[in-house]
Amino acid sequence: MINRFQELLSSIRPVDMSLTAAVQARLDDLTKPQGSLGRLEDIVMKYALATATVEPVLTKKKVFCFAADHGVAAEGVSAFPAEVTPQMVYNMLGGGAAINVLSRHAGADLEVVDMGVNHDFAGHPMLRRCKVRYGSSNMAQGPAMSVDETLQAIMTGAMLAREARQQGYHLLATGELGIANTTPATALYASLLGLPVESITGRGTGLDENGVAHKVSVIRRALEVNRLNTSTPLETLAALGGFEIAGITGLILGAASAGIPVVVDGFISSSAAVAAMKLSCKVSDYLFFSHLSNEQGHRAVMKSLGAVPILELDLRLGEGTGAALAMQVIEASLKIYHEMATFSSASVSGKNS
Amino acid sequence: MINRFQELLSSIRPVDMSLTAAVQARLDDLTKPQGSLGRLEDIVMKYALATATVEPVLTKKKVFCFAADHGVAAEGVSAFPAEVTPQMVYNMLGGGAAINVLSRHAGADLEVVDMGVNHDFAGHPMLRRCKVRYGSSNMAQGPAMSVDETLQAIMTGAMLAREARQQGYHLLATGELGIANTTPATALYASLLGLPVESITGRGTGLDENGVAHKVSVIRRALEVNRLNTSTPLETLAALGGFEIAGITGLILGAASAGIPVVVDGFISSSAAVAAMKLSCKVSDYLFFSHLSNEQGHRAVMKSLGAVPILELDLRLGEGTGAALAMQVIEASLKIYHEMATFSSASVSGKNS
Repeated sequence: MINRFQELLSSIRPVDMSLTAAVQARLDDLTKPQGSLGRLEDIVMKYALATATVEPVLTKKKVFCFAADHGVAAEGVSAFPAEVTPQMVYNMLGGGAAINVLSRHAGADLEVVDMGVNHDFAGHPMLRRCKVRYGSSNMAQGPAMSVDETLQAIMTGAMLAREARQQGYHLLATGELGIANTTPATALYASLLGLPVESITGRGTGLDENGVAHKVSVIRRALEVNRLNTSTPLETLAALGGFEIAGITGLILGAASAGIPVVVDGFISSSAAVAAMKLSCKVSDYLFFSHLSNEQGHRAVMKSLGAVPILELDLRLGEGTGAALAMQVIEASLKIYHEMATFSSASVSGKNS
Repeated sequence: MINRFQELLSSIRPVDMSLTAAVQARLDDLTKPQGSLGRLEDIVMKYALATATVEPVLTKKKVFCFAADHGVAAEGVSAFPAEVTPQMVYNMLGGGAAINVLSRHAGADLEVVDMGVNHDFAGHPMLRRCKVRYGSSNMAQGPAMSVDETLQAIMTGAMLAREARQQGYHLLATGELGIANTTPATALYASLLGLPVESITGRGTGLDENGVAHKVSVIRRALEVNRLNTSTPLETLAALGGFEIAGITGLILGAASAGIPVVVDGFISSSAAVAAMKLSCKVSDYLFFSHLSNEQGHRAVMKSLGAVPILELDLRLGEGTGAALAMQVIEASLKIYHEMATFSSASVSGKNS
């Protein structure tokens, strides 16, 4: 497995910056003052470079919602009980979750991926059964996952990206579901980015002040217990991550390898993106950070990465909801690029010289 | 005319806050942690109150792009020549402008309204010919419009809102087109909100530093020349506004009167919204500010109003582009409200007590 993983990492190519001039020239010929569509123009440039063409296409979109349980939930770090993870998977399969609504709104397909939920699901057309284990171990007592399990989860995510490429998808989005998963995400940020735990630990689905203080102490314990298991990004992801997080890391690596841009959802998905960026420095050219989460700490994380998310709507739900909304902005940007008239074709005068 | 105008103002009702509890109860029963959809939930609440129902509908949407020329363009305050106004109207009628692309993307109809372009247009299905005059007068030498002309422009906008209501539109958006129109918008902010001219005067479609300094001096002159013509909001709008701005003010007043929410575009449209808010303090309950413009000064204006726009994408194009993008977020919010499962229906456990 480790060989296939190394191959995956080495297959990720830097983007071809030589396309920049042609894309910029086209953007500047559209009937608008140069640069006046701001971030929409930046998005077009990034998308074109990631897909390695000056004629980038965006019609087929897919949201992957990775689900898993977390041993650390036993420490009482979430406002909701662990049985909500499988209940919410069923809710998604029934079409009633927020991500169902927003995927439909964005015209994106949705697949729920069971990476490690503590429940046996029957087959369902919208469900991929890729369970690595029935939930991770309690990271406050030792590594959440073994390195082998982590590699399995990563390679599963990468396989889903490769498969999506074969199915003709142009843009993928990450989402997740897993009671207690802001705790591993926060631990990953602390370890991988060196951010102070107390400043980036938030309320998750609704902890009160005491709950947050307890969560901080649990994360500190997890970092301490696993201090010998965090010498590489892969080990760190194993010790402090979770199955859905590792699955997203794999999806991102696989998409970057296949030249498909990925829209990263909020607080949890960003931790998987950080792990992917630590595993391969070329990954960031394929990533759109979709929204600034209302979860405490996400702003510091984005700042640390030098990333400015597309949206800021105070969302803190996960599932891929922010990513699905941002997909529409990305699609709007591509339509601007392809459908607007040019100065010459529309007989519009240019700027005064 | 002044009587019909007074009737319009007095027909705008305060929203019925008694609906708040029922809407909030429904939002809190959706299968997500309470409040976790942040601004999407705020948007639902505002939309429900504006439309006076706990079952608000949003399917039919329309963008009105008001166009006019400005006498003050003769002062050299824009990077583009005045003939671009009619050229861009033709570009819109041909479907090639940014607002055409983004209206289509949002599933919104688009109508271009000639309020005062210095050009005679032939009839076109997408064009409304409501010209008040062939461009405003140079506000650096006196009032841009007479009060009667301003009332005519306002009542035209209000008529369009009423007509849209009859045609079954649920949500309207404002847009505009008019070479040099950041200059009157800035003058209106200075006069109506008391903001300092130099801090809110920006580059428009692309002035350099000297151009901005000159624009500041022109705006100062306009404020000085018209100092006796700005004792009421209506007089101020006449002296320092423009035909498209007054048309948008009218659309907003008419929509509020008809109970239709309006999505306000960026720097120019917001100045029309400020005028409407000064004319009727109840108007703000019907307004969504769509995006924070990259035009210098819009941030100070939004702060002064206590408004937080839905998007921040560094747009500075106008036409209604930011409003069309925000329409999709508003539609997403309404779909969340109507299409998500509830805790009881989906058998999902609630928060730990």
